Amino acid sequence: MRVLAIGAHPDDLEILCGGTLARFRERGDEVVMCHVANGNLGHTEIPSAELREIRREEARRAAAVIGAESVTLDIGDMDVFLERSSRNRMVDVIRRAAPDVMIVPAPTDYLADHVISSQISVDASFVASLPQFVTEVDVHFRLTPIYFTDTIAGVRFEPEEYVDISSVEKTKREMIACHESQARWLKEHDDIDYVEFAMKQSAFRGVQCGVAYAEGYRLHRVWGRIPTKRYLP
Amino acid sequence: MRVLAIGAHPDDLEILCGGTLARFRERGDEVVMCHVANGNLGHTEIPSAELREIRREEARRAAAVIGAESVTLDIGDMDVFLERSSRNRMVDVIRRAAPDVMIVPAPTDYLADHVISSQISVDASFVASLPQFVTEVDVHFRLTPIYFTDTIAGVRFEPEEYVDISSVEKTKREMIACHESQARWLKEHDDIDYVEFAMKQSAFRGVQCGVAYAEGYRLHRVWGRIPTKRYLP
Amino acid sequence: MRVLAIGAHPDDLEILCGGTLARFRERGDEVVMCHVANGNLGHTEIPSAELREIRREEARRAAAVIGAESVTLDIGDMDVFLERSSRNRMVDVIRRAAPDVMIVPAPTDYLADHVISSQISVDASFVASLPQFVTEVDVHFRLTPIYFTDTIAGVRFEPEEYVDISSVEKTKREMIACHESQARWLKEHDDIDYVEFAMKQSAFRGVQCGVAYAEGYRLHRVWGRIPTKRYLP
Amino acid sequence: MRVLAIGAHPDDLEILCGGTLARFRERGDEVVMCHVANGNLGHTEIPSAELREIRREEARRAAAVIGAESVTLDIGDMDVFLERSSRNRMVDVIRRAAPDVMIVPAPTDYLADHVISSQISVDASFVASLPQFVTEVDVHFRLTPIYFTDTIAGVRFEPEEYVDISSVEKTKREMIACHESQARWLKEHDDIDYVEFAMKQSAFRGVQCGVAYAEGYRLHRVWGRIPTKRYLP
Amino acid sequence: MRVLAIGAHPDDLEILCGGTLARFRERGDEVVMCHVANGNLGHTEIPSAELREIRREEARRAAAVIGAESVTLDIGDMDVFLERSSRNRMVDVIRRAAPDVMIVPAPTDYLADHVISSQISVDASFVASLPQFVTEVDVHFRLTPIYFTDTIAGVRFEPEEYVDISSVEKTKREMIACHESQARWLKEHDDIDYVEFAMKQSAFRGVQCGVAYAEGYRLHRVWGRIPTKRYLP
Amino acid sequence: MRVLAIGAHPDDLEILCGGTLARFRERGDEVVMCHVANGNLGHTEIPSAELREIRREEARRAAAVIGAESVTLDIGDMDVFLERSSRNRMVDVIRRAAPDVMIVPAPTDYLADHVISSQISVDASFVASLPQFVTEVDVHFRLTPIYFTDTIAGVRFEPEEYVDISSVEKTKREMIACHESQARWLKEHDDIDYVEFAMKQSAFRGVQCGVAYAEGYRLHRVWGRIPTKRYLP
Repeated sequence: MRVLAIGAHPDDLEILCGGTLARFRERGDEVVMCHVANGNLGHTEIPSAELREIRREEARRAAAVIGAESVTLDIGDMDVFLERSSRNRMVDVIRRAAPDVMIVPAPTDYLADHVISSQISVDASFVASLPQFVTEVDVHFRLTPIYFTDTIAGVRFEPEEYVDISSVEKTKREMIACHESQARWLKEHDDIDYVEFAMKQSAFRGVQCGVAYAEGYRLHRVWGRIPTKRYLP
Repeated sequence: MRVLAIGAHPDDLEILCGGTLARFRERGDEVVMCHVANGNLGHTEIPSAELREIRREEARRAAAVIGAESVTLDIGDMDVFLERSSRNRMVDVIRRAAPDVMIVPAPTDYLADHVISSQISVDASFVASLPQFVTEVDVHFRLTPIYFTDTIAGVRFEPEEYVDISSVEKTKREMIACHESQARWLKEHDDIDYVEFAMKQSAFRGVQCGVAYAEGYRLHRVWGRIPTKRYLP
Repeated sequence: MRVLAIGAHPDDLEILCGGTLARFRERGDEVVMCHVANGNLGHTEIPSAELREIRREEARRAAAVIGAESVTLDIGDMDVFLERSSRNRMVDVIRRAAPDVMIVPAPTDYLADHVISSQISVDASFVASLPQFVTEVDVHFRLTPIYFTDTIAGVRFEPEEYVDISSVEKTKREMIACHESQARWLKEHDDIDYVEFAMKQSAFRGVQCGVAYAEGYRLHRVWGRIPTKRYLP
Repeated sequence: MRVLAIGAHPDDLEILCGGTLARFRERGDEVVMCHVANGNLGHTEIPSAELREIRREEARRAAAVIGAESVTLDIGDMDVFLERSSRNRMVDVIRRAAPDVMIVPAPTDYLADHVISSQISVDASFVASLPQFVTEVDVHFRLTPIYFTDTIAGVRFEPEEYVDISSVEKTKREMIACHESQARWLKEHDDIDYVEFAMKQSAFRGVQCGVAYAEGYRLHRVWGRIPTKRYLP
Repeated sequence: MRVLAIGAHPDDLEILCGGTLARFRERGDEVVMCHVANGNLGHTEIPSAELREIRREEARRAAAVIGAESVTLDIGDMDVFLERSSRNRMVDVIRRAAPDVMIVPAPTDYLADHVISSQISVDASFVASLPQFVTEVDVHFRLTPIYFTDTIAGVRFEPEEYVDISSVEKTKREMIACHESQARWLKEHDDIDYVEFAMKQSAFRGVQCGVAYAEGYRLHRVWGRIPTKRYLP
Repeated sequence: MRVLAIGAHPDDLEILCGGTLARFRERGDEVVMCHVANGNLGHTEIPSAELREIRREEARRAAAVIGAESVTLDIGDMDVFLERSSRNRMVDVIRRAAPDVMIVPAPTDYLADHVISSQISVDASFVASLPQFVTEVDVHFRLTPIYFTDTIAGVRFEPEEYVDISSVEKTKREMIACHESQARWLKEHDDIDYVEFAMKQSAFRGVQCGVAYAEGYRLHRVWGRIPTKRYLP
């Protein structure tokens, strides 16, 4: 199976669904990790241009932990709007990834970059299936199920499906830890221990479904995308 | 796997989850079908006592179609209340069935018998797991996932999980058709073609998830009962 | 009474509210049917430019079945965005139609074209009432009630009001059948029998409200648009 | 048409739907007003037994204002439980009233007496239609639409349908004013001007739907009770 | 201020709102802790009668940690029903505690004992204010705000208000640890580390509101009980 | 404390939270009132350019009643879109106001200008905290709690928190009355008595929480913005 996971910024996927992606990989699925915004405003002191490069590299290292491919739309932070150019670039990301299932940010998440990345991903996924919408990449006919990841801190999100990530807890920690610049920023900006912050949420989701660590999801439930089997690992 | 499906009256299970039960059976699972109320008021002319016998037999025949066991709490129609006696009789039904997964009526369904049967089933399921609650049947330790069936006519119910029943459509029709007394009553009382009434809903649920016929479910999402895998066929 | 019904693509109105429009016409109301996107990407083989013409003609024929007027914003498929130009063209559609009641897509429908067509219609409806917003068409002062149609396949939509369309079932089938290009595309792309697909939903909505066929609606409930009588037929 | 309106205590109907009942009467419908609890605890000083008599008489006078019939289940305040005896007495109230439409308390209202009166009314309404459930009153076959009134102070209640009561505002005030004992108690117990308290809510509901005074309702939306026309005046 | 906190079983209050109660005490408020069910079925091996005594003592010790009073309705586990006797015993608990604010179980919690304890508490709170409802304890006129605690594992519960319990984290751990019998049972029955289980939830609620540990609440929002100031510490 | 209140048009703040702002001022907080759209289409006869000037002055006078500062984004009515230019101008409004708490329109309000003003405010609030997002105004690091005001007419809005404005009722009336042009337009366009229209809603919110007049709010509940104390007066 081919999995395309889309996050708002470098590190969001690792925090919200890193364990699930590791489990997809464990069972042999191909995984492409895409972040929409390049994270260039995510630091108090490192200049944007430099930070953009640093974070691109951090995302690549995190993906490499599980042998996933890392791609990006490379949009500036807080510059994600619902417009043709971004939507269409996402169409090609999807056509290249040719996924059987997609994972995207929740529309109730805390920040515009997340909310609009969610919309762009969903919209582009349909466009990618239309043969008359010609781009430089071949059409990807399949309308896949789309799962929303948990929100940051789990606010306004009640999971419908849970993935047990207890067996890959360390892998998830390792993936998150690749984002060194972010760990420093969150420490400075919000006094948050980055890896622990993420794992507290995974521990809580684990409490809810009776395992050590878990990640939660909701299906984007619309016509043409509702499965009759479980896609999540 | 062992499956316990609980419906409000004889025929509710057949209408709402007959196809799913057939598919459970196909893959080798054991299925126990229990109706809470005996259906004794479900006719304009047949006297209650006689009707109760007729419907008990109809339920047995419907269960036999898929090789399921048929049991009942044998409470009178519209006499289902949330009280100790009914709850405790359900405890023993559950302990005898010893299920790995339960299917019960939706709490939003159209009639008190359905709503309260739902509550009794959920409550009894917990009691059945308590060793200090001694009855004549052995404790059943396992707290199983519980799925709510669709409601009659699908009002106030948005399914979270779908089961493709296209391959067992005829079996479902056959199960429903066993309830001959009810077919007549619904024809007289509401001018409804019984089997078609049920299959229109299955066809619609099929439209929603992209198959010919389907049945929809929601998980009773509470602590101790949330799975990390799919139980439905 | 004057009715303005707005759908996302040619055929959406026919599928979701064709029966209701037929009933409006039966009682003598004027009906204008507007589609926002021209459907130019709705086929695997027919080139966009040609398809646009074909579908424009199909929409006209479908409207003619009930003696309704057919208009369009003529935006390309998946090119519907919340922007001034589209909103303002809709303002003139509304001012020309001068409706007493509007029917628009549900904001929870499955596709961006539907969701944004819904927003544009609602927004334009207010602008159309402002005399200082000068366009080439006269202001339409009346703030009308707005009803959302059902979604495709009825996912994420619980109707609040139902219209019995049993008496115009054949008319609805005839309207849908006018969209011959779409029937073929859906057959090829999703293996769906077009007319039956739509009528299964109408049959199910009929089951819910106790008639043979029905269509469901929700009111856009905001200040200035809440009626104290029934507008739907 | 015959209307059966059921309130929790004497005065709840007058406050929550008095204007609507007046409008039903204006167009010639028959109205039966039933209160479930007798209001015997609704005063700090008047002893229960005496209060029960006073309030029974006040309810009769209020009903007389619009020429409605007044009946009661005569259960003690805060003694309304979901049990056979109360449910069955309600069955006979319904069979005697033989309604075409029912109005009952909202299940989200502020007090157990309201919540359970709502449940009893809904449950009894079904039982009343069953010929094999024999009581001293003839079966009432019709399953009517059921509307929930607004809640006290409109908390946890978003109306779906509104009734314009501007033309009967004075009648509503007069009906409420019949409950003299209650006016005193609310003044003493909560420092509330009784009639104004009620009319502020009617004025607000009027603001919402663009009239001077209004009352709001929600349909009890379940199978067998969903109309395709407007029953409210 | 006087606080009455009601939990389903001995230990539920400690787990769900122990930190908040500690903070109430810190600022000088009086706290009464009441459990409805006596916990007599909460063990696989200790006989019920003995367990009931043990747990009563554990609850007293936990309350003593913060200088709170401990009371109980002493109903058997899974024997909590919505009936007069239990409701009326709760009336006297409330009248004796004479609270300014109440904390009760969430109506969406995982178990009937919790759900019904919630209902009984809310209902009794109103009855306790009625002077004509005479019991051996004086009427408590005040209708207090009522807050629902979080659910076990936080399923089906989105907090509206948060209390920062970081400063009393150790106190909360100490209170929970008093329930030694339960710690063993949960370890055996569900393989759960009791104190850590509870603190993971507090840590997650802390993540949500930006502190180390927190507890979450929802207001029982009905007429007569809505405050215009914050009651929680 | 510093308060930034953002409304869609001149007068929306006065109607929806004027009393609360008065109470903030009473306790010594600084208040900045910002309207997004300049109200230039809010009249049938006064030309837009002239009206814009009139309404700017009316807003200043209303703010002066409570000693608040008045600012505006000065966007044309119905020209508020989610785009960079507007969002970025709001960033500077927020940086200049440097608030400890923000009040913005509800995302469920009746008009696009309100809905999008809400989005712009929330998005800009985050951007304003990013030091790498350089504008001519200094970064405002603090991520504040954000409260949504009630909607116009209170439709689709259930308040979570209430502010008692009984003591400043006259101040609120005075603030609203400053908008003389609007009073005339609403009288002509919708036959609404402007001040009474607003105060009926405040009276109803007062009924809900047991005071003479009140205003209702909901928290924008997302990560980083959830308080553990009450910010509202």
